[in-house]
Parts: sequence; C-alpha cells; structure tokens
Amino acid sequence: MAYSDDVLGRARVTETAELGAYYEQLAKLEAGALWTIANKIEPWYPQPQSVPVKWSYAELRPLVLEALRLVTGDDAGRRVVALYNPQRRDIAATVGLLYSGLQIMGPGESMTAHRHQAAALRFVIEGTGAWTIVDGQKLKVGPRDFAITPNWTWHEHGNEGIEGGPDPAGPVIWQDGLDIPLVNALDAPFYEVHPDVYQKQVGVTNSSLYTYGAGQLRPFGADTWHKSHSPLLAYPWEPTYEALRNAAKASDGSPYDGIIMEYSNPLTGGSVMPTMSAHMQLLRAGESTSAHRQVGSKIYTAAKGSGTSIVAGQRIDWTEGDIFCVPSWAWHEHANASTSDDACLFSFNDFPVMRALGFWREEAYPDNDGHQPVTPN
Amino acid sequence: MAYSDDVLGRARVTETAELGAYYEQLAKLEAGALWTIANKIEPWYPQPQSVPVKWSYAELRPLVLEALRLVTGDDAGRRVVALYNPQRRDIAATVGLLYSGLQIMGPGESMTAHRHQAAALRFVIEGTGAWTIVDGQKLKVGPRDFAITPNWTWHEHGNEGIEGGPDPAGPVIWQDGLDIPLVNALDAPFYEVHPDVYQKQVGVTNSSLYTYGAGQLRPFGADTWHKSHSPLLAYPWEPTYEALRNAAKASDGSPYDGIIMEYSNPLTGGSVMPTMSAHMQLLRAGESTSAHRQVGSKIYTAAKGSGTSIVAGQRIDWTEGDIFCVPSWAWHEHANASTSDDACLFSFNDFPVMRALGFWREEAYPDNDGHQPVTPN
Amino acid sequence: MAYSDDVLGRARVTETAELGAYYEQLAKLEAGALWTIANKIEPWYPQPQSVPVKWSYAELRPLVLEALRLVTGDDAGRRVVALYNPQRRDIAATVGLLYSGLQIMGPGESMTAHRHQAAALRFVIEGTGAWTIVDGQKLKVGPRDFAITPNWTWHEHGNEGIEGGPDPAGPVIWQDGLDIPLVNALDAPFYEVHPDVYQKQVGVTNSSLYTYGAGQLRPFGADTWHKSHSPLLAYPWEPTYEALRNAAKASDGSPYDGIIMEYSNPLTGGSVMPTMSAHMQLLRAGESTSAHRQVGSKIYTAAKGSGTSIVAGQRIDWTEGDIFCVPSWAWHEHANASTSDDACLFSFNDFPVMRALGFWREEAYPDNDGHQPVTPN
Amino acid sequence: MAYSDDVLGRARVTETAELGAYYEQLAKLEAGALWTIANKIEPWYPQPQSVPVKWSYAELRPLVLEALRLVTGDDAGRRVVALYNPQRRDIAATVGLLYSGLQIMGPGESMTAHRHQAAALRFVIEGTGAWTIVDGQKLKVGPRDFAITPNWTWHEHGNEGIEGGPDPAGPVIWQDGLDIPLVNALDAPFYEVHPDVYQKQVGVTNSSLYTYGAGQLRPFGADTWHKSHSPLLAYPWEPTYEALRNAAKASDGSPYDGIIMEYSNPLTGGSVMPTMSAHMQLLRAGESTSAHRQVGSKIYTAAKGSGTSIVAGQRIDWTEGDIFCVPSWAWHEHANASTSDDACLFSFNDFPVMRALGFWREEAYPDNDGHQPVTPN
Repeated sequence: MAYSDDVLGRARVTETAELGAYYEQLAKLEAGALWTIANKIEPWYPQPQSVPVKWSYAELRPLVLEALRLVTGDDAGRRVVALYNPQRRDIAATVGLLYSGLQIMGPGESMTAHRHQAAALRFVIEGTGAWTIVDGQKLKVGPRDFAITPNWTWHEHGNEGIEGGPDPAGPVIWQDGLDIPLVNALDAPFYEVHPDVYQKQVGVTNSSLYTYGAGQLRPFGADTWHKSHSPLLAYPWEPTYEALRNAAKASDGSPYDGIIMEYSNPLTGGSVMPTMSAHMQLLRAGESTSAHRQVGSKIYTAAKGSGTSIVAGQRIDWTEGDIFCVPSWAWHEHANASTSDDACLFSFNDFPVMRALGFWREEAYPDNDGHQPVTPN
Repeated sequence: MAYSDDVLGRARVTETAELGAYYEQLAKLEAGALWTIANKIEPWYPQPQSVPVKWSYAELRPLVLEALRLVTGDDAGRRVVALYNPQRRDIAATVGLLYSGLQIMGPGESMTAHRHQAAALRFVIEGTGAWTIVDGQKLKVGPRDFAITPNWTWHEHGNEGIEGGPDPAGPVIWQDGLDIPLVNALDAPFYEVHPDVYQKQVGVTNSSLYTYGAGQLRPFGADTWHKSHSPLLAYPWEPTYEALRNAAKASDGSPYDGIIMEYSNPLTGGSVMPTMSAHMQLLRAGESTSAHRQVGSKIYTAAKGSGTSIVAGQRIDWTEGDIFCVPSWAWHEHANASTSDDACLFSFNDFPVMRALGFWREEAYPDNDGHQPVTPN
Repeated sequence: MAYSDDVLGRARVTETAELGAYYEQLAKLEAGALWTIANKIEPWYPQPQSVPVKWSYAELRPLVLEALRLVTGDDAGRRVVALYNPQRRDIAATVGLLYSGLQIMGPGESMTAHRHQAAALRFVIEGTGAWTIVDGQKLKVGPRDFAITPNWTWHEHGNEGIEGGPDPAGPVIWQDGLDIPLVNALDAPFYEVHPDVYQKQVGVTNSSLYTYGAGQLRPFGADTWHKSHSPLLAYPWEPTYEALRNAAKASDGSPYDGIIMEYSNPLTGGSVMPTMSAHMQLLRAGESTSAHRQVGSKIYTAAKGSGTSIVAGQRIDWTEGDIFCVPSWAWHEHANASTSDDACLFSFNDFPVMRALGFWREEAYPDNDGHQPVTPN
Repeated sequence: MAYSDDVLGRARVTETAELGAYYEQLAKLEAGALWTIANKIEPWYPQPQSVPVKWSYAELRPLVLEALRLVTGDDAGRRVVALYNPQRRDIAATVGLLYSGLQIMGPGESMTAHRHQAAALRFVIEGTGAWTIVDGQKLKVGPRDFAITPNWTWHEHGNEGIEGGPDPAGPVIWQDGLDIPLVNALDAPFYEVHPDVYQKQVGVTNSSLYTYGAGQLRPFGADTWHKSHSPLLAYPWEPTYEALRNAAKASDGSPYDGIIMEYSNPLTGGSVMPTMSAHMQLLRAGESTSAHRQVGSKIYTAAKGSGTSIVAGQRIDWTEGDIFCVPSWAWHEHANASTSDDACLFSFNDFPVMRALGFWREEAYPDNDGHQPVTPN
C-alpha cells in the first residue's frame, strides 16, 4: 500500500486567500476547518513522537548514587532519576504515555506514605534490603523481583539495611514504572499524603505471597475479591525464572520473544493492573528472534545476561541493568549475546489499555526472514 | 483538605548550584531529577488544560453553510467545521481527548468510504436526507437521531435530498464526535481508504434497527456477536424521547441530571463503543439540578428547548443546536429555561475509558444546597 | 456411527456366578461394579424419560375453570392444573426438569405472597385483569404478555376484575413455568411465606417497564444492578410482536424456527433468568421449517394462529392456547397452517443451564431435505 | 421459624370425593392438581434423598484389588468399584448428582480412549505408575495428585509399572469423580469411543504443568484459550501442600474448614471445570472446626492423617484413603485426631453448578458454640 495523501479519500484542498479569510472567521469562534489538519490527525499508521532510547546502567548508576548525597528522601518525596524520551520531556514520559525512573534508598531509609491515581510497579535492580507497604501489607523484595503498587493504594517503602552493619546493607536501586502521563493525558490525576505519614503494617510480611503465591490454588472464598488489580502484590524472581525454564521444556515459545510469560492476576488470569502489564522473557543460549511490532509502548530492562535488540532499525546492545524503550508500532527483535547462558529481559507496557479500548494489533515483519535492516551508526 | 505543596510527602527540594550542575549531567543522559517536576505531574486533583467553551449554533451555522460553497466534499474528505478548545488546538481536541465538529452535506452529495482506528458518532442537528453506510449496512437518520461508526468499520455517508426537489431536501448538518485525540495520544491511529471508493449496501436499509431496535428482545443466536461495539448502529429520536418520558413516570431521576439515559449495546448493556458513550437527558419544565463532577470529558448539544448550565462557575445559556463542553472534574449543573416544556440535552463522553482503566470517580457539590458560585462575566 | 455396545471401549463383561458373589460383597459396603451399569449411565446420546406430549387447551380449559369452584385460592396456595409428562409424575415435571401448569384466578381474587428458590415465569392465555407484585413492584399483564418471577423474589398475584362489573372481568388463566424439578434434583429448594401475608406496593405500577422497557437505552448508573435476573419483569405482547415483524424485514430468520427472538435482560443481553429462557417465534404465512434438535427441554404454547409441529416423529396440531413439549435432543420442526396469516409460538426452556454447564449442542436434521419421517397414528 | 404446612400460604385443601373424581379427569389429560403435591415439591429447605455415608478404604481395598483378577480392563471399559448412596442407586449417585468410584489399574495396563459429556476428575490414592492422556497431552500422576478430564476431552489412562519389575510397580488405585448423574438428570449425555482406540501423545509429558504450573505467570498470548475448563490438567501434591502451609502463615483460615484452598483455572481464577470444583484443606494439629452447611453436595477423601467429621449429626471417623459424603445443606464440621501432625482432606463438589444457577447459600451453625449434637450410634 502506498501512503500518498494525494488520493481521493484524503483531504487535498487547495488553499486560497478566500479560504484564508474563512479560517480567520472560524478561529474567532474557537473553530477551524477540519480539512486543513485531517491528514495530520488521521495518519495512515502510528507516528509516535517517542523514539527508541537506551539508558545505560553503567552511565546512570553513579548519578543515581550521587542523589543519595544531594537530596534527602523526605525533601524529594521519592529520590528518583527519571528517564525521559527526548521529545516527551514536557509530559515526563519515558515512551508513549509511560514513565520510568531509577529510585534509590539508602540503608535504613524510609519514604513517607501517599497514594495517587497513577499505578506503579517496581523492578529491583540491586540491593537486598528493600521493603514496601501497600495498603498495610508489608513486602520484602530483592534483585529481579517484580512488585506492584496499584492505583490509589497507600504505599511507602524503604531499605532496612544498616550501613556498616550485617547483610543486607548498601543502597537499594529499583526501577519505577508508572502510568503518570496516561493519567494526566486523561485528566484523571489525584494525590493524597497519608494522614499519619506512615502506615501501620497489617498481618505478616509477604502475606499476599503466602496466600496467592501458588497461582493455581486460591483461598476458598477468594471470589469476594472485586478490585481491579491482582491480590498478589509481589512476584519473586526464583519462581519466575523457574516458570520460564519449565515453559521452555514444553514449548518453543514465541518466534519474536523466545520464552515469554506475563505476570498475571491469579484470580482472573488478567494483567496485574488495568493500565499496565509486565513480562519476563528468556532468550535461550544463542537465540535470536524475528521482528514484530505491536500497538502499545514498552520499556525493557536487561534482567540477566547480555544481548542486542534492534528497535526501529536501531541497534541497542544491553547488559544487566540497562533500560531501553520500544515506541508503539516500532519493529523490534532480540538476540542473546551468549551461546552458553540464557538471558532474560523484563518489560512492562500499556497493552491492557490497548486491549480494553480496542486498539490492540500486532504484526510480524514480513521480509528478509523476519529481520529489519539496521541503520548504521 | 488544604492543597499545600509545602508538606512532608510532597517534593520540596531547595535548588542549589550543585543541583543545577547535577541536573545538567542527567539531561545529557536523557534523564532528569523527578523531584523537580513531581508536584506538577502528580497534582492533588485534575488540572485539565481544557476550559468550558460554548459554540453558538446561531453563530457557527452561517460559516458551516459557507463551507458548502468553498470546498467540495471530495477535496475536503469530509466538509467539517471542527470545534477547538483554546489550549488544545495542537491536538485538535474539543475537550480532553475528545473531538467534535459540524459536518455539512449538500443535497445529493455523498462522501467516499474509509475507515480509521478512531471511533465516530453522529448527532443530527438539521436536515432530513442523511444516510450512512457502516460496514455495508445503510442507515437513514433524521434530526436528533444518534448513530455510531465504530472503530475500523468502513463508512461513508451522504444526503439523498435533491435541491429544489420534494422533501427531503436542503443540506444536512450533523455533529461528529470522535476520539481522535485519544487514539493519537496512545500512538494507535490507522487509516485506510476503501479500495472501491464506495461500499456496496448489504441487506435492507436500517437492518440493525429492525433486528436490534427492540432492545429487550434479541434474535436467538445473537450470542455469536463478539465485536466490542453495539450491533445497533442508529438510535432514533422518537423512541429515545419516549423512553425518557416513560422513565419520568417511574423515577425522579438524578438530582444532577434530571431523567438521564445512556444509549446502550442491547447485547451487553454496556456503552455503544469501548471508548465513548452517549446520553440523552430530559429536564422537566422548570427543573434545575444540583452540581456534581466526574472524571471524564463531556460534550453537550442542546437537543430540545433551551436552558442554562453552570460549568466550573461559568454560566452557559443554550438553545437548540448549541454545543458546550465540560472538562474533567469540572462542577456542572443544568436548568431548563421553560416552566411549561421539557428540554433535552444530548451528550457524549469518554466515561467508558475511565471505567475500563479504573479512573472513574464522581462527586456531588457539597455546599450551598448543591449550587456553585457563578463567576460574573 | 453405529451405536453397538459390543465394541472395545464399552463395558461387556460376561456375568458369572463368581462375579455375582462379588457384587453381593460390594453391595454390603454401599458399592457396586461400575461395568454392570456403565453403558446404561453413559449412553451414546440423550435418552430422556420425557416424551412429546400435547395438552389441548380446549380439553383442559373446562377443568381449569372447574377448579375455581372446587378449591379456594387460599386453600390451594395457588389454584393450578399441573401438566405432567407420563413418566415424570414422580418429580412433577412437564418435560425434562421443567414444570408447567395452568393457573386460574377469579375476578377480585388475590393470592398470598411467598418466595422460593425455584424461578417462575408467566404467559397469559386469557383474561385482562391480571396483576402480580414482585419484590414490591406491581405489574399488570394481559393476554400474550410474558412476565418473570425470579428466584427468591417475594411475589403474589391476583385478578382485579370484578364479577358482573365493568371490563376487565372474567377469570384470568395464565401458564406458569417453573424450574422446580431442577431445583429439587440439585437439592436446593427453599420456601418462605411472607411475614405480612401480602406485600406493600413500592413505586408506580409497571415501573420496570417504564424504566427498562426501551432496551437499548438504560438509566445512567444502571451498572449498579448486580442481580442475576433481568430488571425488566414484564414483556408485553405488542412490542414483542412488532419486534418479530421488524426482524422479518431484515432477515429470513432461522431455517428451523422462522423469525425467533429471545426475551433478554436489557442490562446484559443474557437470558431473563439464570435457569430459564423464553422465546417468541413467528411463522410467516405458509411457512414450514426444517428439523433440528438441541440439548435442553422446551415447552411451547401456541400464542397466535394454528399450525403443526413434528416432534420426534410425532405430529402435533396446535391452535391458540395449546401447549406441547419437546424433550432434549428430540428432532422438531414447525409449520404454520395458514397461508394468509402469521402464527406465533411462545416457548421457554432450560438452555441457560445447558450453556452455563457446557452441555449446549444443536444439530440440523441431515436427511430428506430436513424433514423427519412422521410416525403414523 | 416453624415449618408447619398448616398455615396460610401453604396448600391445605381438604380432600373430598368430588375432588377425587376431578383428579381422575385431570389424570386422563396428563394433568393433575398442583395443590396435592405443592408442599412436597416446594419444601421449606432441601430434603436430599442422599444421606451421609462413609466408605472405609480398609474394607473396600481388598475388593478393589479383587477386581484386577475378576475382569479385564478392556472388558470392563474401566475397572471401577462405584460408591453408591443407598437411596440413589437408581441413578448411580454417590451423593446428590455426583458420582465417585475407585478405579484400579494393574502394572503395565492401559485403558482404551473415549470421551463423554460427563466431566471427570481423579485423586490418586496409591501407586506411583499412573498416567493419563487428555486430548493428546500425557500426564503422570502420583499419590495425592489431583487431575482433571474435562467434558468431551478424549482420554485414556494406564499404569506404567511392570509387575515384579523395578519401582514404580504395583497397582494404581485412584478415585474417580464424575458428574454423570447431573448430566443424565439434564438429559445431556453423549459418548464416543476413540476411532483409533488409543490417542497419539502430543508434545512432552506434563506439558500443561510446565506451561501453566506457575499459576501467577502465564504464557503471553494465553488469552486465546477459550475453553470452559482449566488448561492446567494436573495439580501435584507437593505444591498444593506447600500452598496450604504458606497460607497458614498468613491467615487463620476458615472457622469451618481450617486452611482451605480451591484448585483453580490459572487463566480465570475460576473452578477447574464448569460443573465441579475441588478443594484441599488442612486441619492444623489439634484443630477442630465449627459446623456450617452449604447448598451443594461434597465428597471427601482423607488425604493425610486421621480425624473425625460430624455430618448431619453423624460421627464419621476417617483415616487415609477413607471417603465420605456430605449431602446438600447438611451441617458438617471436622476435627484433626492428632495434636502433633496436620491432617488434610481432599474434596470435590458441585458448587460451580449452584453458583452458575443462582442456588448458592451457606450458613453457620448458630447454636452451641457452632457444634451440632451428635446422634448416638
């Protein structure tokens, strides 16, 4: 299909002085002629302002650590280095309508409690002392663990490590993922600080893991859960990795993603939250995938090993802790750099939004055995 | 609740030269310090850039008619005067992420067929000759009728009137409503022109009305409909008005909206499309309502009678054909100007998006017997 | 497929004296050898004990009227002539696990209020004075109207006609349909008499008709209805008949049923109640249909005109008021006796049960142009 | 509430000779007077014909083993000792509309493949060599494992042990649970033998366990599963037991059931099949529960340890392998006999039917601190 706007069915009005005067009259009434912008606002296919970007953990980590010294957690609210897509700084977006950043908490620190309409998720990059309290439930999370803070849940978090003390110690750095730009685009943000500054813990630590962690068994009576998010608030790394390796025994996986699994709400099988979903995928030793594209934005984090992804023709080499993004409808494919070890990519996305609103599409790259041409640097 | 940002739980870092240098380093890595914008991107409550606007039909109609002479339908694609919110011209939005415009078709005209990811709806303002073909199904619509063009359905339309001929004749002016800004904000637009320029009609005219028009009876076997939109594509005025008057016999209605009904998918009871819903509401003679607000944007059209609405403290007087908008979370209330006749307001909104994503809220105005203070002009 | 039990895969144990002794030992422990009954309890296809039966209204009506004189409503609870399938009298079933009967109420009579786990539906055969109060809501119903009394709703009914007085007068005869045998088979019955003997009416008469009677428009906020049954409690004849005639303009209908529509819950598009659904179908002048069969039991009532149905090879001639049944998986087809007028059949069934439990199947009669051989009388 | 039938609102017609003659006339027309049976078919509360029964494994096991010698698997179809409720032998029911039995397979045996409308489940009592193939998928199951054979899936099974050979060897005895009486009550049975007598295995053994065994992670794209049953076909004992012990860390469990979990479909959170659900519950050392009752039938198997249950006032002592049933609406409570070890009860039920049809109720025993009086033997 040729995408020319010079065809019957597209706007192609020849501008004249008379039309110019007409447009001025319309403008005075807060109106305008649709045909002057129709082709721009109804393009043939997605034209994201976001571009592929890689954030090197090796480069960012020193600056994240520097923040520990520069600002207190209480003054910053959260001590976070935000990741911005170059053309989307105005809306604080990392890609599309998603936001991500790297948060650091020093040993013994804790952040105050608040809640907001935006939903949040965490993926721990380093440090063993992290905890979070979500609506009263305390969770401990370690490297490569995934956790959620669903919208309007009270939450606070900290690092229980003691500097110079026994393990665990040292700072915690985790990746935040939020749908703040989406919430703002829809004029739906709300925010509250906790009236008591800090929550009181309810029940034992990790209670949702104990209760819902065996996803195929649920407490009898759990059909009384009517919230739109998963009752399971944390997804540890070990069973996730085991699930991927088990799945690899039974399936060749996806030609585009290797072995890929979605963190899901054990009571519905759906995504963990209504606006964002998260995946962990495993690329077997030596595996390289074919390209595909989807409607929706994705943010990847190299969780294990190293490799290369091609995103919209741009080569991105990654190793543990690196973060990169894939704009909507951009071709992307992945390769594990190792021929002996597997590699894992964590990612989160706004696919649940696309599905809920009827916007979901995906497509395989049709040519060249499924591989895009790579733009030379 | 006081909304001060100078509290524990909000960002309140004192800027320093050292921090300034730090921010520059971050900027080079496509990053930034979250605390510098945290309060702005996570406000206490919605801060829409859209404002209340009224578009007077008496003022706009001459300009809309003028378009008939100035551009052909084929050149314009669609001959539409778009309605823009002052600060949202860049995204062609009427309010929030919704778009609306007034489309005109001369007697005997027809527009070519296309489809797009954006969903569309129509509310006929004047003229009796309008028809539309949606995925092969031809529908005829008259004044105050409501019709839908769900996303990615092929559609074309026209005006069967013959100038100077017998009734129906004269131009058709209908209001378009689309979710184009939403689709674009989510990087999800697609567009195709019909390969044959025009569709072939399938079946009898108004077939979905004949088949699904009695909403509480459905064809046996209709459980095979799996599309996300209503199989009923048009909702005529007469049964709508009768439904409102019947409902008034059984209920006092809503304190905020009088007698208000939602056009619904008869196979699911849900909204007609996954991104937009539409309402028709009846204000009884002399009725004035209390104020409330909702998360979501609304565009109103005065369908019958005249009255006054207060939106975010701004007084808007309306009569038939006038259009006005209510931004998200703006207080609004309505009054019928007549003490002898009822008045009707048509409106459409993005509430289904808010519900699907977990953003829905509504709230009654708590003070002054439910009435906002009105800003003097 | 041949249905022989003398094949590998079916039980075919040769009985011996030793086995006989073994069976006796098992019997003492409340056990038995499955192979002795396996073929019987796992037949190749349904083997209903119910048979096709026709109940002639001309024959039954005098006896139903006689009941008026013989017993009072208060003594009888309800004054009903029950219709029994010959082999299912022990469970009071009309066909399968469905029950039906003809209830009569004299002018001025009213029955006391109760509720039960069984769901009920009504189809009015004759008389204009009938009313029912369901959970406080009063409904008036006339000939060919359909009404529901969902499970565990308080209900009472009566006939407001005054003997010798002005119209409406005369007795009301309506057909009851209940799932009593189903409820009992599942050991789930409950029953209560109303503590005040009679309910107090809430709101205006026919309020659910006023509120939900335009099925494709619903009161805004109706998404707060969470009951498993339709909020619309009565479905009058006139719009039903109009819906059938409209549908006939747009469709040839079903080859097995002519134009057939299902009474549905306007808030879900589903059946009116979770255990029973009801249909009204129209056979056009001269129309005769092909045979098909379904898993599920059906009870038909001739609502308009006259005709002939073939059920499991048995010819059933019907005229207004006649009732007949179709057992599960029995072939059936219908013909309108008139070449100038349409004919209508009301029916109700347990299809929602079959669908909910995964038992639903249907099949067209494959031979002889879709017509079964008819068993000579 | 007193349950007397001699009240206004219940049928209480005095029989007379005239009525007797009337009843005879009705009988000739396949009809009857409802008031003669109304109170019987609409009782105040469930009156199951099923009674509590215990089947002692110690008593039954020798007879089950005896079947190995008496009949071949091919002749028997399946070599099963069925468990019958005394008054429900006519419909081959163990309790309510559920069936259960003990199936034995000798080392090296395999049963031919078939499918039927009835759904089946298995709970392994003893033996380590069992396998089953369900729609091509081979599963190996050991003691205390739970597996499902959803309705209309092809299935066959066997015991891979070799008599006199290395471990695994010896017979397998597993408990079957089927909804045969339910399927038959609804006139919905179908049955087919596999055209090739045996299925071909597809994929690796235990593939659904590898793919769906981590219930809170699902293969991306699993939203394409649209069957009404769980894609996970086997639920091994070890993670089940671990889930119960984990849940006990976070919750005191149910006052009626101790720590109780439901085997669930990881893609929906619902029951494993639409007609039957299964539970495993853990009674902590020394735990005894309060009594409650539910609408629905249950069959229990002592999976670990020993204890006592009181069912409808009847004391049932159980130890591993014993089976007992709880009729609908019967009070029941459980006690672990050990003060040092936990005990586990497996059970399956027809609760999904009750929920789907709107019949579900449950109730706590109100008196005597929640404990029923026990009927002396």
